Amino acid sequence: MSKDFVTFKGSSSGKVVESTIQPSLGPTEAVVRQTHSGVCGTDLHLSHTNNALGHEGVGVIEALGESAHLISDVKVGDRVGLGWVQKYCGKCRMCRSGLDSLCEDSKELWATNNDTGSWGKGNVWDVSALRKIPDEVESKHAGPLMCAGATVWGAMQRCKVMSHHRVGIVGIGGLGHLAIQFLAKSGCEVVVFSSSDRKREEALEYGATEYHSIGDIKSHRGETSELYTSQNIKAARGSIRPLDHLLICTGAQPDYSLYMPLMAMGGNVAPLTVDLGLTPIPLAATIFQGINILGVKVCNRTEYDDMFRFCVRHNIRPTIQEFPMTEAGINEAVDALKDGKAHYRAVVVA
Amino acid sequence: MSKDFVTFKGSSSGKVVESTIQPSLGPTEAVVRQTHSGVCGTDLHLSHTNNALGHEGVGVIEALGESAHLISDVKVGDRVGLGWVQKYCGKCRMCRSGLDSLCEDSKELWATNNDTGSWGKGNVWDVSALRKIPDEVESKHAGPLMCAGATVWGAMQRCKVMSHHRVGIVGIGGLGHLAIQFLAKSGCEVVVFSSSDRKREEALEYGATEYHSIGDIKSHRGETSELYTSQNIKAARGSIRPLDHLLICTGAQPDYSLYMPLMAMGGNVAPLTVDLGLTPIPLAATIFQGINILGVKVCNRTEYDDMFRFCVRHNIRPTIQEFPMTEAGINEAVDALKDGKAHYRAVVVA
Repeated sequence: MSKDFVTFKGSSSGKVVESTIQPSLGPTEAVVRQTHSGVCGTDLHLSHTNNALGHEGVGVIEALGESAHLISDVKVGDRVGLGWVQKYCGKCRMCRSGLDSLCEDSKELWATNNDTGSWGKGNVWDVSALRKIPDEVESKHAGPLMCAGATVWGAMQRCKVMSHHRVGIVGIGGLGHLAIQFLAKSGCEVVVFSSSDRKREEALEYGATEYHSIGDIKSHRGETSELYTSQNIKAARGSIRPLDHLLICTGAQPDYSLYMPLMAMGGNVAPLTVDLGLTPIPLAATIFQGINILGVKVCNRTEYDDMFRFCVRHNIRPTIQEFPMTEAGINEAVDALKDGKAHYRAVVVA
Repeated sequence: MSKDFVTFKGSSSGKVVESTIQPSLGPTEAVVRQTHSGVCGTDLHLSHTNNALGHEGVGVIEALGESAHLISDVKVGDRVGLGWVQKYCGKCRMCRSGLDSLCEDSKELWATNNDTGSWGKGNVWDVSALRKIPDEVESKHAGPLMCAGATVWGAMQRCKVMSHHRVGIVGIGGLGHLAIQFLAKSGCEVVVFSSSDRKREEALEYGATEYHSIGDIKSHRGETSELYTSQNIKAARGSIRPLDHLLICTGAQPDYSLYMPLMAMGGNVAPLTVDLGLTPIPLAATIFQGINILGVKVCNRTEYDDMFRFCVRHNIRPTIQEFPMTEAGINEAVDALKDGKAHYRAVVVA
């Protein structure tokens, strides 16, 4: 079987362009009619390539390959999520240990000349990667949970966040505004850091316990010398009590030297927002404070299911801004993200 | 009680100078006649300050303060190790959780105007930080175990190294040559990376399974693009099979971009050698490969005891080069370390 699908790809100019693909349905694949997709910062990294884009998708299964039932329980008519990992091998030690987001032979958006993306009216996806969406979660809200949500949720699992912990969040955007909600409903102290005071009220409404603008932190910093004494670390913190975990959710990479002194001894930092360059890190702080920098790649499939149930139970949803799933609509959504004007996640709707 | 002690301090020129201190014996302190001390790279960071230096010491207890027995079982005449952490508060949540190397209120070498150091004929030390040395370990060998050994041992605990793991070591020096022995005797695959082929034979004698000179790795690297596909990561690895853990034991900071592709999915990198600057880290690799960068600050007190027992059981000892504990001797040892000529740990002997 082979069918024409409208899909949206990157191009050399960085503008998203409409394209038509004709994928054939493999034995473990599904034809998915796509209805919604979030627009994530990682898509921008690939917008100059020929790849199909979009990895925060939701759609409905229209057909299944002959062997799909061997690796998944999804059925025709199911509403499913489409994410960053497009195929799990199911055979490596990561998949077999339940650590499948780190599958050693996964197919991903990131692959060269990838034709599979959630921006478009439909596509063919391996069923290993499809997550069934609970009835209580609307499709337009499920999209951003597939990457922004799953990344924050994955960080909470990797950091082993517990309800008595004090957790910092740097940046309130697609990831950050979900992190505040997830952590507040997990009973944590939620400490938000933002570039200005502008989002204070909204952060507190999402459930933040404390809000600090970056100026608050910088004002302490001049006093400290480079010696890693506990006195100097305390001085650099000012009145901010030490954090057990810190989730980096900013568009651009933050100044890690500013945030390291805020960490508790043995604390965890999770850099969640991707930058393909080299980030200057004060590694001595990892030694003197025993800080761990944890790599988080979305979350495992069982954790996706946990996250969706948690969202249903606590009525958590992303704050979204809708755009039409057309070439013009997607480019408008991408521009809103680039300009920091998406509030807080752009979702394109078919 | 107050007594004169010859001790060796940093100075504005960076040269180590002899000095006399007159510390008084506090209620929880011990007078220690110091006999041996290793010379560690971290001492060099403080050699321009007025601090007493040395934190890989061994000595004999000559007197105890009136309350010492309340916090330690050490006795007059005991041979003890003197390390990086000079006093544990015993009251913070880290100390009470057994995570005492991260004590929130420790006294350390790093403190400003510190008069306590193991380079010198004697000093006063808080008994909370003294480790009893087993009879089977010679004092000249115990010194380097107090920091170089404890750091490598701490990394093995933080990384949760198991006998079936494949563990990389970058750099063969004071830390690296102990890491090879510890890991080989732990049943691991020990994969050594060094700047040249010069130390190959010796590394294999210490127990290395594989030896790679950095040129071997660089030769693969040109072929890869910046896209984090599993194909590109595999290409950058060349014939080197992925590592579960990587211990950075080099004098200067290595090129992390070179080593990240060598890591297995979900692997751990422990940067053990201190640099006070900012190190460029390709954080995207932490996400795409789920790599964790773990902060290691020597090891906890119970882990010190485990390490010493392990060394006795497996007959592990540092390879040392002895210098006299005099101003001239210490400066000669420091120069040997600076020039990369210490083989593999300089130890000053009273």
